[in-house]
This record gives sequence, structure tokens and C-alpha cells, in this order.
Amino acid sequence: MLTNLLEGKKGIIFGALNDRSIAWKVAEMAHAQGASITLSNTAVACRMGEVMELSERLNAPLIPADATSVEDLQNVFQKSQEILGGKVDFVLHSIGMSLNVRKKRPYNDLNYDFLNKTLDISSISFHKMLQVAYQMDAIAEWGSVVALTYAAAQRTMFEYNDMADAKALLESIARSFGYIYGRERHVRVNTVSQSPTMTTAGSGVKGFDGLMDFSDRMSPLGNATAEDCANFVVTMFSDLTRKITMQNIFHDGGFSSMGMSQRAMLQYNKSFETVNVE
Amino acid sequence: MLTNLLEGKKGIIFGALNDRSIAWKVAEMAHAQGASITLSNTAVACRMGEVMELSERLNAPLIPADATSVEDLQNVFQKSQEILGGKVDFVLHSIGMSLNVRKKRPYNDLNYDFLNKTLDISSISFHKMLQVAYQMDAIAEWGSVVALTYAAAQRTMFEYNDMADAKALLESIARSFGYIYGRERHVRVNTVSQSPTMTTAGSGVKGFDGLMDFSDRMSPLGNATAEDCANFVVTMFSDLTRKITMQNIFHDGGFSSMGMSQRAMLQYNKSFETVNVE
Amino acid sequence: MLTNLLEGKKGIIFGALNDRSIAWKVAEMAHAQGASITLSNTAVACRMGEVMELSERLNAPLIPADATSVEDLQNVFQKSQEILGGKVDFVLHSIGMSLNVRKKRPYNDLNYDFLNKTLDISSISFHKMLQVAYQMDAIAEWGSVVALTYAAAQRTMFEYNDMADAKALLESIARSFGYIYGRERHVRVNTVSQSPTMTTAGSGVKGFDGLMDFSDRMSPLGNATAEDCANFVVTMFSDLTRKITMQNIFHDGGFSSMGMSQRAMLQYNKSFETVNVE
Amino acid sequence: MLTNLLEGKKGIIFGALNDRSIAWKVAEMAHAQGASITLSNTAVACRMGEVMELSERLNAPLIPADATSVEDLQNVFQKSQEILGGKVDFVLHSIGMSLNVRKKRPYNDLNYDFLNKTLDISSISFHKMLQVAYQMDAIAEWGSVVALTYAAAQRTMFEYNDMADAKALLESIARSFGYIYGRERHVRVNTVSQSPTMTTAGSGVKGFDGLMDFSDRMSPLGNATAEDCANFVVTMFSDLTRKITMQNIFHDGGFSSMGMSQRAMLQYNKSFETVNVE
Repeated sequence: MLTNLLEGKKGIIFGALNDRSIAWKVAEMAHAQGASITLSNTAVACRMGEVMELSERLNAPLIPADATSVEDLQNVFQKSQEILGGKVDFVLHSIGMSLNVRKKRPYNDLNYDFLNKTLDISSISFHKMLQVAYQMDAIAEWGSVVALTYAAAQRTMFEYNDMADAKALLESIARSFGYIYGRERHVRVNTVSQSPTMTTAGSGVKGFDGLMDFSDRMSPLGNATAEDCANFVVTMFSDLTRKITMQNIFHDGGFSSMGMSQRAMLQYNKSFETVNVE
Repeated sequence: MLTNLLEGKKGIIFGALNDRSIAWKVAEMAHAQGASITLSNTAVACRMGEVMELSERLNAPLIPADATSVEDLQNVFQKSQEILGGKVDFVLHSIGMSLNVRKKRPYNDLNYDFLNKTLDISSISFHKMLQVAYQMDAIAEWGSVVALTYAAAQRTMFEYNDMADAKALLESIARSFGYIYGRERHVRVNTVSQSPTMTTAGSGVKGFDGLMDFSDRMSPLGNATAEDCANFVVTMFSDLTRKITMQNIFHDGGFSSMGMSQRAMLQYNKSFETVNVE
Repeated sequence: MLTNLLEGKKGIIFGALNDRSIAWKVAEMAHAQGASITLSNTAVACRMGEVMELSERLNAPLIPADATSVEDLQNVFQKSQEILGGKVDFVLHSIGMSLNVRKKRPYNDLNYDFLNKTLDISSISFHKMLQVAYQMDAIAEWGSVVALTYAAAQRTMFEYNDMADAKALLESIARSFGYIYGRERHVRVNTVSQSPTMTTAGSGVKGFDGLMDFSDRMSPLGNATAEDCANFVVTMFSDLTRKITMQNIFHDGGFSSMGMSQRAMLQYNKSFETVNVE
Repeated sequence: MLTNLLEGKKGIIFGALNDRSIAWKVAEMAHAQGASITLSNTAVACRMGEVMELSERLNAPLIPADATSVEDLQNVFQKSQEILGGKVDFVLHSIGMSLNVRKKRPYNDLNYDFLNKTLDISSISFHKMLQVAYQMDAIAEWGSVVALTYAAAQRTMFEYNDMADAKALLESIARSFGYIYGRERHVRVNTVSQSPTMTTAGSGVKGFDGLMDFSDRMSPLGNATAEDCANFVVTMFSDLTRKITMQNIFHDGGFSSMGMSQRAMLQYNKSFETVNVE
């Protein structure tokens, strides 16, 4: 299938780190669909060979930014417009980090400075991105902004810790800002709630393997991969989805609508089998 | 704790079959809280010794009815008002049955006559009950109507079959009629979404044991029992919850807000343990 | 933008009546995106000049069917496979009708024969369609089935009557069957919850104009049109959305995530302006 | 009705400011139902005559605390246990404040220091409260914690600004901590989503009158008052609701399940009436 869903469109992809990143796959897919893009990540990430290689391969200039810095974000939108030759049509927010998770502080013993950082990096950065873009009028009419999220925002996942709260806040920001940006400039803002994905971020979560397996067996189509997600995200960036906004769309092989599947139940029931060893 | 939450109130309990029934526990609890009640069930059920014993013990006359018959329902509301001396204050709908489940027709090979029966008995009976009561003006101002439901209405449960659709329809009827009955007579209509419960109905579902165990380990407070449910339902019948209507309230030990718990994950992970037998 | 999102794909569109129908627009759009399709509607509708004209223009054979008849549905899938040369890749269900609405029976005075018809035509027809296709193995691996629905399934809309319950049931069937069809054949099943649309069906609802206006002012992007909906539906039929299933996606300009907008509030507040006439 | 739902129970009520406060009504109602309580509020609020009068009347000692201070919260739980003679059985969190709202910073021009304060005061304070109580083991087995919230957490309300995000975060914290507190100590944590209420906090929101009116006409039972809310909250504190946790329960006269009501539509339609004045 040869489509040009994003022909002539300009975009910014935040958060591509390596070829397991969803943002990485979105960047590749957006490029393949005809878009011109810039990439942004932290200064440290931008100096990594892999990221530089992606940037070159896609002809997508790298613009370092601390996504919690309004100034840095202004710079990303300024530079991107200069490079791409006009307002941007789409933005991907794929940013999240919890020091409480990294430092193994359980949810009932959170460090509140860490929590503030979790929210600032993973959620408020999205508001800053939107507010900066709005005030600079940097996103074209009917532009599309997507942030990646996870089902822990609705239903508690063991060990997901304060990232669950960060995702709930992120999704709320998408609604709140989506209302204003839609009303004033017809820019739509949505979140995509993706299956657990074995990215660098995902692999930091304790017990992630078991959860991946359970999630896969619960989902009639299995877990969605990073590539699958990229495919869907480009449809959200395209002109074909112009009237969808303020939504959280589950891209998860059906997981979110499952209570219990046959495959997961069969596996679960194996745990009760007694083994008689003589 | 000695409370009289339902002192002076009159009610009708549909669906008490034996001492494992939730409706049975609600009847006992409503009585204990000071209410006068009538009981209704199918003619066959009303002839069972257990049901007759409950009726006598609670001084709660039995009024047989096929809940799919408008005429029978009219009779229940007519007789109940005569017996109890006025309009009723609360009604419990605890009725559900699927021939597709009983006859082991899988969801991808439903018998459509059976499906119609499932919906008529498990869902439309609730509309009929409400329409009959409304047209007879049989429920007092600020009365409370509760129907029991299950989380399969939102998330698919392996083997729950067409009962999932029946519960979704039931919950929709609660909202639709709740709007009118609330607006016109201040009568509130809600559904209570209960943990899987080892009632006679529950035990007919294939693989129910595994699901009960999983549900219990997923729920931070464990599965709610029939007694727990009865406790909650009487608060919904009381005057303390007058402004709640058109809601589906999860009474399930937290299950509905869980994606994965530590206890369920530990159990699940046991299923992968390899056993080396020499 | 020239895309070929559905190049080489085969599909069946149920429910195109005239150029205001969403199904009509989906048929045109699917054709424009490279798909080969058949059309199905009632025998009466199939004899209408407009429908015949569409059929000819899109080279899309018309196959009459009563969507409540399993036999008729079998015929549609049989013929469509013969005509299109193999299994179908996508199906649109855009069917709904309520005699209670037509005959102006209010929700608290429903005719139960009419209600059964409402559910059979608007909801159970979707199960029949899926069961027939499943048993004939008529949908290709990774095929996509979409049914159109409306927000009244979640939140009561004055005058929408028993169609609200029908839509809730329809959405439940999408989840229940989506689980099995996804697990066994990787076929995905979703519903699209569309803004109120001035179709022939929509215009039958009393007070629809006021609701359209309110909905439009509540939605930051305004009501989505039938064309907008067709655009989105083809992305759901495409290979780019393969891991989305069992979902109800709101395509409504943001309405579903709004509690109160500035535009609707300003209009609402005008209703209180007093006019002093001398 | 004379009930003693909270007989022998001990509790802490955060946030009673004056007789329009929901927390004030909950304090009175908890007292009337047999509970012993302490009150907590900011140092400034605690010096107000009204609050002191309430404290005396209910024999409920005042313990000043900045709810964003872990130390202050430790003091509240420490003192409360000393005063009440043991672990507490229930806690009410009724705390919220936004400087962005107060200083009229629109949502697309937020001050980020203010946003941090909004989240710290309105949401993270709830986590701190729970974490302090958990670590001090200050809440008795099967205790009940309730935080008040608002429907803007799910659906955007014009002018509710960053409080919407704060409420979404608050509700997520209730789920996340509810899981752990339930699993480890059988303490349940829920939020109650209340109708807009003309409290001191509510009256600070621009255009609140219009929203109150709309909300009232949309809700079949009308807006729930502070007294109504207090009635419901005591049932949540009682032993009758022991198996409900991690839930957000709408106590709103039905608003949350309404899309459009007859009363609101009639009022809305009046706004279009043209007036011919000669």
C-alpha cells in the first residue's frame, strides 16, 4: 500500500531515543508518509549516535530541549518553523519519567520532590508545549497533537507507581487544552493509550515481563507494537481524522475492553496445578 | 450498630431464590433495618420451601410473577400496595437468565430465540417494572429502585456470553428511565455492579471458579459477598442517598479500577514455573 | 492528497439511503480510496432511484436484505464474495429504526413489540451480521467491522427514546463479538460514535434542531458531518489501525469530553435576558 | 429517622470554612450520626469565629495545618488520635484552590508556579494525607477516606481552568493509593463527585451562576446540595459500604449521565426567540 497520508505536512516529534521508542517509529512512519519533521529530545539524548543517525536518515534536524523549560520549548517551535518553512501540522509528545520508579520508592513512600519532577516531566511538559505553541501561533489550522499514555491512568497497575497519576494528569490536560485549541484554532489534541511496549522506559518498570505477558493474553489481538502504534498515530495526524479531539483512544489490541480472556484464564489456571513428584 | 435506615419504608424484592441469593440477603437486611416488604419470584420459585420459609420469617408476602409479563407486574405492584398500605419506597430487581448459557451455545453460535429471551427476562423486565410502577404511580416520591448488574457490561468476560449484552442493556434502561422518573416524581434508579458471587445463577457460568479466584486476587478488598452487597443496597434505598440517580456503582472490592494487582500477578507468574522431575 | 488507503480491499456497506446518509458517504469514500464494494439495504430502499444511481456510479452491486434475517445476511455475504472475488475486508453497519420514536410513544409508555423491533433492527442485526460472517468465514484475516452509534448510549438525550438502549446494546455486541472475532481470526470490531447528523433517520427525532445547535456549540470543532465521518471510517477500515478493537471511538468534534463550553453557555444565558417593552 | 450510622467512630474533617462548606455539613452530620471528630483547616481559617463556633458546638477540636506540609499532617493525625482515643475511622478531604483561577489567568496562559500550587494544594495534599496516615498506621482497619471532586475531571467545563486537571489528578491518587491501602489494611479510598455547590470556593469561578442553572436543569433531581452530600458521605464512612473502594461516585442529581434534558433544552431554545418591538 502506497499512501501519502502526510504529504506536505510538517511536524515535531518529541521523545525518540532508540529504535525501540514509539516516537522513533512515528518519526520513520511520518517521514514515509510524506511529512517533513524535526526531532527533539534532551541534550544528552541528542548527542547519542543512534538519535543522530535517525536525524540524518530522515533529514530531520535535532533540536535539543528540556521539555520542562518554556524557553527551550519556544526554541523548538521557533526553529522548527524556520527549518520546515511555516507552521507545524502535527506534534507528538512521547515523554515520561519517574524518579520514584527509578529509585524504587514505592507509592506509599513517595519522595515528593520526585513526584513533582514526575508530573513536571511527564504531564505539565505537555501543557507547556501546547501553551507555547498556542501563544506563538505555531500550529496550523486543523493541526493535530498527540500524546502517548497508558491504561494505568484508568485502572491501577501494580508497580506503575506515580506514573499512573502522571498519565491521568496528562490525559486531563489533553482535554482541557484541546477544548481551547479546538475552539480558537481548530487544532485537535488527543492521547493514544498504547499497550505496554518494551521500550527503554517500559523496561524500567519492575515485573514488566509478567505484565506484558498477561496483557498479551488478555488482548484478543495481542499487544500492539511500537510499529502498530506509529501506523495509528499517522492517521491521527492526517486530514482524515479532523473531527476527533479531546479523546483518549485505546490502541491496545482490545485489552481495555477485556475483563477476562480465555487465553489469560487458561494460563492463570495453570498456576494451581499441583505437581506430584515421587 | 443499631440503625433503622429503612424505618417505616415499604419495598418489593424481586429474585430471592435461596440463601445464596443477593436478593435474599437484601430482603433480610431491609427487614432488619425496619422496612416492610413483599417478595416476588416466578411461580415455580414461590413454591419452593426455602422461599416460603423466608417469606414467613420476614412477614413478607410472596407474590408470584413472570417478570416479563406486564400483567403479572401490575399485580405485584397492586398487591404490594394493598399489603403494605400505600406506595412502595424501594424496589430491587435481581433477575437474570440466559438459555444460551444454560444450553452451552457459544456467543458466536447464539440461538436468537434464546437471545430474545435473555434480553426479555434480564433487561426488558426492568423497563416493564418501571413502566408499570410509573403508570400506576406505585412508587412514592424520592423512592429508590436498584437493579443488580455485573462488570461484564463494560469489559468482556470469557464465557459470560449474552448476559454481558443483557447487563449493558439493563444499565442503559436504568439511565433512560431514571431520567424520566427522576424528573417527574423524584424517583431514583441505579444499578449496582457486584463482584462475581457464588449464587445459583453465578454457579451456572463455565469456568466461574477461576474467575472468582482471579477477581478476588485482583480486588484489594477481595470479592464482595452477597451480605456486603445487601448492606450497600440498603443505603441506596435509604433517604441518605436521595441525590444519586442514573448511576452504575461498582460494589466489587475495587476490581473495576484495577488493571493488575500484586496478588493476581504473583499467582499468574506461578503458572510459568517449570518443574524438573527426575 | 491522493491516498489509496483501501487499495485492493473489498467491503460491504449496509444502510446507504440517500446522499445525506453516512453510509452513502462511506461508500463513496471507500470507493475513492481504491476499494471494491457491494451495497445492501432493504428491498424497498434498493428500488429507490437514488440508491440505484449510487450503485451504478460506484460499480457497487446492490444486494437487498432484511438485516434481521439470518438467511438474507447469508445471501449478502455469499453474493458479495462472489462479486468481489473473495473474502471481504470491511463491513459497515449503519442501521437503526425505532417504531416507538416514529409512532411517538414516549419512553415511559413504550410498546414492547415496537421495542423488540427496535432492538432487533438496530442492535441484534449487528450480532447476526457478525455471526453469519464468522460462520461462513467471510471476512479476511485482519478485516475491520464498524457500526455507527451515538452518545445517547452513555448519556441520556431527551427524546432519543429506546434508540439509546439500542445503541448501548449495539456497543456491547461490538465488544462481545470483537473479543471472539479478534482472538480467532484477527478481525476487529469497533463502533464510531458520531455527532448528531441531519440524515433522514436523524431528522425523525423530535426537537432535533435544538439538539444539533446545542451539540454544535458544545463541540470545540463543531458537529462532525457525514463526510467527516466517512473520512474517519476509512482509516478504521485501513491496515493502519489493525490493533484497535472492541472500542467505541467518539467522532464528534469533542462533544463527548465537554461539560460546558463558552459558546453554549453564552447562548444559554441569552435565554434569561428580559425584554422591557413599552 | 434516627440512625446511628457512625456510632463510636472517630474521624477527621479537613476543609470546613463556613456553613456553606460541604465539609461543614459533613462535620455536623457525622456528629449527628454518633461520631467523634476533629477539624482541620489552615491556621488563618482556624482563627475565624465561625470555624471556632463549629468546633465548640460539635465538641470537635481544631487542629491547624497546611495540607501541603507533611509535618503538619503528621501533627493532625497524631493529635487526632490522642484526642479521639485511638485510630481514626474516617477522613474527609475537602480542599482545593487555584491561584490561576483567582488571578484570572486563563488556561492558555497559566502561570506554572500557580499550577504547581494548585496541584500541591488540591491533589498532592491528598497523597500526603494518605501516606502520612499509612506510615503512622493512623487509620483503623476498614476505615474510609473520601475526597470531594467535580465532574470537570471527566468533561471540560468552561472557566474551571486548572482545577479540572487537579481533580483528575486527585481521582487518580484515590485509585492508586486505594489499591495499596485496601490491600494492606482494608482501608477504602473513594472520591465523591458533587454537583456544583454555592460554597465560598465555588462562587469564585467566573460564570458560576449560569453553570449552576444549566446543571440544575440538566439533572433530573436538580443539583445536590451540601446537606445532600453530607448525607451520602456518612454512608460512605459507615460499615455498610465496606466493599466499595477506588471509586468515583457521582452525587449530582443525575447530571453525569445526562446528554440533554427537556428542561435545559426548553430553556436553551428560549435564547433563540426573537422579540419584535414596535
